[in-house]
Amino acid sequence: MTETELKQNNELPGKDAPIGVFDSGVGGLTVVREIMRQIPNEKIVYFGDTARVPYGNKSQETVIRFSEQIVRFLRTFQVKTIVVACNTVSAYAMEALERDIDIPIIGVVKPGAREAVLATRNGRIGVIATEATIGSQIYTKYINELNPQISIYGKACPLFVPLVEEGLWEDPVTDEIARRYLTELIDIDIDTLILGCTHYPLIRSTVRKVIGEGVTLVNPAYETARQLRELLLAHDLLRGEPPRLGSNQYQFYISDKADKFVRFANSIIKYGILSAKTVNIEAY
Amino acid sequence: MTETELKQNNELPGKDAPIGVFDSGVGGLTVVREIMRQIPNEKIVYFGDTARVPYGNKSQETVIRFSEQIVRFLRTFQVKTIVVACNTVSAYAMEALERDIDIPIIGVVKPGAREAVLATRNGRIGVIATEATIGSQIYTKYINELNPQISIYGKACPLFVPLVEEGLWEDPVTDEIARRYLTELIDIDIDTLILGCTHYPLIRSTVRKVIGEGVTLVNPAYETARQLRELLLAHDLLRGEPPRLGSNQYQFYISDKADKFVRFANSIIKYGILSAKTVNIEAY
Repeated sequence: MTETELKQNNELPGKDAPIGVFDSGVGGLTVVREIMRQIPNEKIVYFGDTARVPYGNKSQETVIRFSEQIVRFLRTFQVKTIVVACNTVSAYAMEALERDIDIPIIGVVKPGAREAVLATRNGRIGVIATEATIGSQIYTKYINELNPQISIYGKACPLFVPLVEEGLWEDPVTDEIARRYLTELIDIDIDTLILGCTHYPLIRSTVRKVIGEGVTLVNPAYETARQLRELLLAHDLLRGEPPRLGSNQYQFYISDKADKFVRFANSIIKYGILSAKTVNIEAY
Repeated sequence: MTETELKQNNELPGKDAPIGVFDSGVGGLTVVREIMRQIPNEKIVYFGDTARVPYGNKSQETVIRFSEQIVRFLRTFQVKTIVVACNTVSAYAMEALERDIDIPIIGVVKPGAREAVLATRNGRIGVIATEATIGSQIYTKYINELNPQISIYGKACPLFVPLVEEGLWEDPVTDEIARRYLTELIDIDIDTLILGCTHYPLIRSTVRKVIGEGVTLVNPAYETARQLRELLLAHDLLRGEPPRLGSNQYQFYISDKADKFVRFANSIIKYGILSAKTVNIEAY
């Protein structure tokens, strides 16, 4: 990947341009939902890599290659900024993507880390995420940059994503798996828990039940949308008014046309996603 | 894909050439294990698409595109035959692959169907597999070609693959999920059950416990290796003697270098896989 490949030769996009958002699959829609709420005037182009999902148990090299293809694809829409709505990509590929791009780009890990640091009282923060995100120690790095006194306990929860995707959001099996994953974090007496994978907000009530009322749950999507708004303001890229009717405010692209995407998306976003276009992402 | 793309211009490989075997990931190693047992003189080149696993919840179009890339990759080794050690690929892509290839190719579905037809006494066969394989109705098609009187009951078991990959081979959670998936097959009074995904033989004991002693479990891997031997004999391609020492009898390639592959592989195959080479399969 040379620097010029992610850059574009044209003038940089202005405030009317859409925001590009991507994820390994559908989880990033929990971030889209938050962006829709907090900055409702923006246009969004979403890409979910449903042909190669999941990323969370793959290597850094592969995740970087896939992410660079997706950024090239999103830039064909002249997006004004890119939101990496995936913790695994934010953990593994953020530095590589930032290095080669000339528009603002934001991930979910830094905002999530910041929110957790503000929330903890006893200085003990838990992080649940994919194997990749936990293995990268990225939350530990960002949290300790903000406050080196804080102790961070990471726990990979590889079965949560398939359980969420199978719709077992409130189910005794998910309860049991959550108990196995979370018990050691309870024993360590954390007071703040980062939901470090964009799928996990969908089983928030299960996590809450198992971890107890005394622990603050941090969903990085909220803080990501807030920081995205600030970023757009700082670059004079925030849209002042809603797009005109019929201007296709939200567009969804996926790499595999499984009908499941639309069903799943509609259960996350109230907007009503009627269709998603398929794209061969390997060609980018 | 034109016909010439999967074909090669050179002379066809002879009996000393390796067998190419592939799967979406690690499950196909249960087929490799069976080939090693039944025709131990053969050389094998295995490819597992660990960068894009799983295939079982993806679309036919995507599965065909991925499979064609893999066949092109395997043909660079001058393989004499190809074993599609994945039910999803056998269900979705077999016709496309067969159409464009000039060496023998064999999947796992036809052999599995044949073995089940020979096993059933009451003419009621169950199939458990991925969503893709069940949706394709491919087992129904092949079984009814052999015997149109037989009734086939398919059940997609999407959580089995992640449970196997997380090592929960004997676990109360896997028991509970198995009960949910299998209860309706028990109620229907099947006497034969096809393990229609190459991961499932690894949780055979759980399936046995839930389904009871009265049901014959069919592992297509056994019959696939048997038919592969016949196929090689028929084409005069069966190796008569073992390869000389140090000739690299078994080679393993994957598309993502997750260490997990080697650990998982060694738990399936006694051979002792020390390493696997990584290849960028999208370039094929």
